Amino acid sequence: MSGTSLDGIDVAIIDIHDKKITPVAFHSIPYPKAVREALLSVSNNITHTATIARLNFLLGALYADAIHETARRKRILLKSIDLCGMHGQTIFHEGQQVEYLGMRVASTLQIGEAAVVAERTGIHTISNFRERDMAAGGKGAPLVPYVDYLLFRHRRIARVALNIGGIANITVIPASAKPSDIIAFDTGPGNMIIDTLVSHKTQGRQRYDRDGRIARASKIHPRMLEAMLSDPYFALDPPKTAGREQFGHEFASGLIATGIPIDDLIATATEFTAQSIALAIPKTTELIASGGGIHNRQIMRRLRELLPHLAITTTASHGIDPDAKEAIAFAVLAHEFVKGRPANIPSATGARHPAILGKSSPS
Amino acid sequence: MSGTSLDGIDVAIIDIHDKKITPVAFHSIPYPKAVREALLSVSNNITHTATIARLNFLLGALYADAIHETARRKRILLKSIDLCGMHGQTIFHEGQQVEYLGMRVASTLQIGEAAVVAERTGIHTISNFRERDMAAGGKGAPLVPYVDYLLFRHRRIARVALNIGGIANITVIPASAKPSDIIAFDTGPGNMIIDTLVSHKTQGRQRYDRDGRIARASKIHPRMLEAMLSDPYFALDPPKTAGREQFGHEFASGLIATGIPIDDLIATATEFTAQSIALAIPKTTELIASGGGIHNRQIMRRLRELLPHLAITTTASHGIDPDAKEAIAFAVLAHEFVKGRPANIPSATGARHPAILGKSSPS
Repeated sequence: MSGTSLDGIDVAIIDIHDKKITPVAFHSIPYPKAVREALLSVSNNITHTATIARLNFLLGALYADAIHETARRKRILLKSIDLCGMHGQTIFHEGQQVEYLGMRVASTLQIGEAAVVAERTGIHTISNFRERDMAAGGKGAPLVPYVDYLLFRHRRIARVALNIGGIANITVIPASAKPSDIIAFDTGPGNMIIDTLVSHKTQGRQRYDRDGRIARASKIHPRMLEAMLSDPYFALDPPKTAGREQFGHEFASGLIATGIPIDDLIATATEFTAQSIALAIPKTTELIASGGGIHNRQIMRRLRELLPHLAITTTASHGIDPDAKEAIAFAVLAHEFVKGRPANIPSATGARHPAILGKSSPS
Repeated sequence: MSGTSLDGIDVAIIDIHDKKITPVAFHSIPYPKAVREALLSVSNNITHTATIARLNFLLGALYADAIHETARRKRILLKSIDLCGMHGQTIFHEGQQVEYLGMRVASTLQIGEAAVVAERTGIHTISNFRERDMAAGGKGAPLVPYVDYLLFRHRRIARVALNIGGIANITVIPASAKPSDIIAFDTGPGNMIIDTLVSHKTQGRQRYDRDGRIARASKIHPRMLEAMLSDPYFALDPPKTAGREQFGHEFASGLIATGIPIDDLIATATEFTAQSIALAIPKTTELIASGGGIHNRQIMRRLRELLPHLAITTTASHGIDPDAKEAIAFAVLAHEFVKGRPANIPSATGARHPAILGKSSPS
């Protein structure tokens, strides 16, 4: 898995036996600086076709190296691995159709050549999971809800899986749910506003509010918070997607321009994040959190206060490293592909029907 | 199949039964003008990532439409079709490794989203044939020689399959050959120089020398011909690839700049094409020609004169429409993928080993 933050490559090795999913290894390898810069330069930008073609093959080699390295550290033989699920690096995503050359087109573009991964690891590789959902009229995202369903469904307990990344999203899994019962959507901002404000405050020396300490020590600005929570996004019915542009640099710049002290803005943004998540959580029994935001103690403290009747845990209580969940998800999706099982949740992506997701590159 | 000429989409429907390949239908559908212009603008050029992503999905829809249209014309039910082989549209190809971000990278980029084809036709689709050969160290081309081998191999007769497209290439198939006995390479120019000169002469009103009439009625310039044939390319050992840039617009401009009458240049280029092909043909029994160049009677007449001991036919004598051969080839390659058989010829592509070519998108 390589996320849109362009940090690098997350490799999860898991064991799937019947319906039991057991994590075996997890390792993150940062992109070399030059590669990260090249990816930034091609993502949703003007570039030369050659750069995209070359990066596609180069990323394939880096992904293969990352698999070798992760297996080596845990003394796992590559030949004992049956299957690889490769998300690739998203360099363009447009989930809503646009008018293009007289047709209506939604599209997505992930690079990282699966043929190179299969060749260099000898592992059967499944890639390109989002395209088929979009071909079936979906937005190609989110795809993790199906895996949340496999990991966390329960006969008698209704659960919510919450992931706090840049954006926060939830998967609602009613007791005894079938895939079609799942509801999944973005609740709004995750760490995105907080991280941008902290980067601004520290001129890039710090990129997040460690343990939520700044927020904890500063004052919430009540009118600003109220204004933020009146955003019409929160009144929309799911499925809905919070755009990365919606709570990104422009949003943070608007906050900074108010002249309110930056620490108070961080406290306010943290409260905004916690409240907008809490608002979205339906009546359930358990909340299972993952993503970088779980390390922000102020967000987690406020969630516990705002949702006092909910048992709040992280995926760690279920044996899943909260930082590894997304990488694990694409390994699970690869397994669903070879089993011939559809893995999109039409109620979450908007697709017309369930579809088998992925393309297969033989070992 | 969509060639680098950007003419449009060739659809071949074939029946494969054991080792017998029977063409059933063939239909060509030109690209809409706006699509052709968009493809020209992204091919080996500077563009926005969005354009590549959108064109990828849009081409998938056009390919699916082309399959529907071809089947409809022949009253073939789509559900009777088991498999689709999709070459896609090449927008970048760099068979030789280049230094890129500190690594050695060869790459290729074909667009046309197979997930869209599979979704809209309900046919299991195999795409992206070139990547795995390149991952294994090959140039990703040529891939048709393996299909020439399947179509034309003979126990007692040594054969050469010649395709005269923009560039001319041959596949040498010794009697009782195994795949590893195949030799395949570009002989040099096909129609490329002639077509450019005719377009220049007629200011684009005519794009090729119909039946080779201009060449037939004009004079060869002997010194110019001698100079052309002294190009070091012809002395190189195979495998070798003639670059599209090698005999393209610049080459033709150089000829025009000599001041020799344009009709005589066309005659000379035609003779150059025929002689450079004839020079490359090893001692065999039969030559089986295909490609647009077979409609140039002057080329074919000269080949018969230059190779008097060879039986020269076209693929039509073997039941294969010479214009359909490439499209048929990728249907055959899709079949080889599902049978789990390697389909690259390492002696032709330079790959380190045979590899199963393609990515599978389920119906």
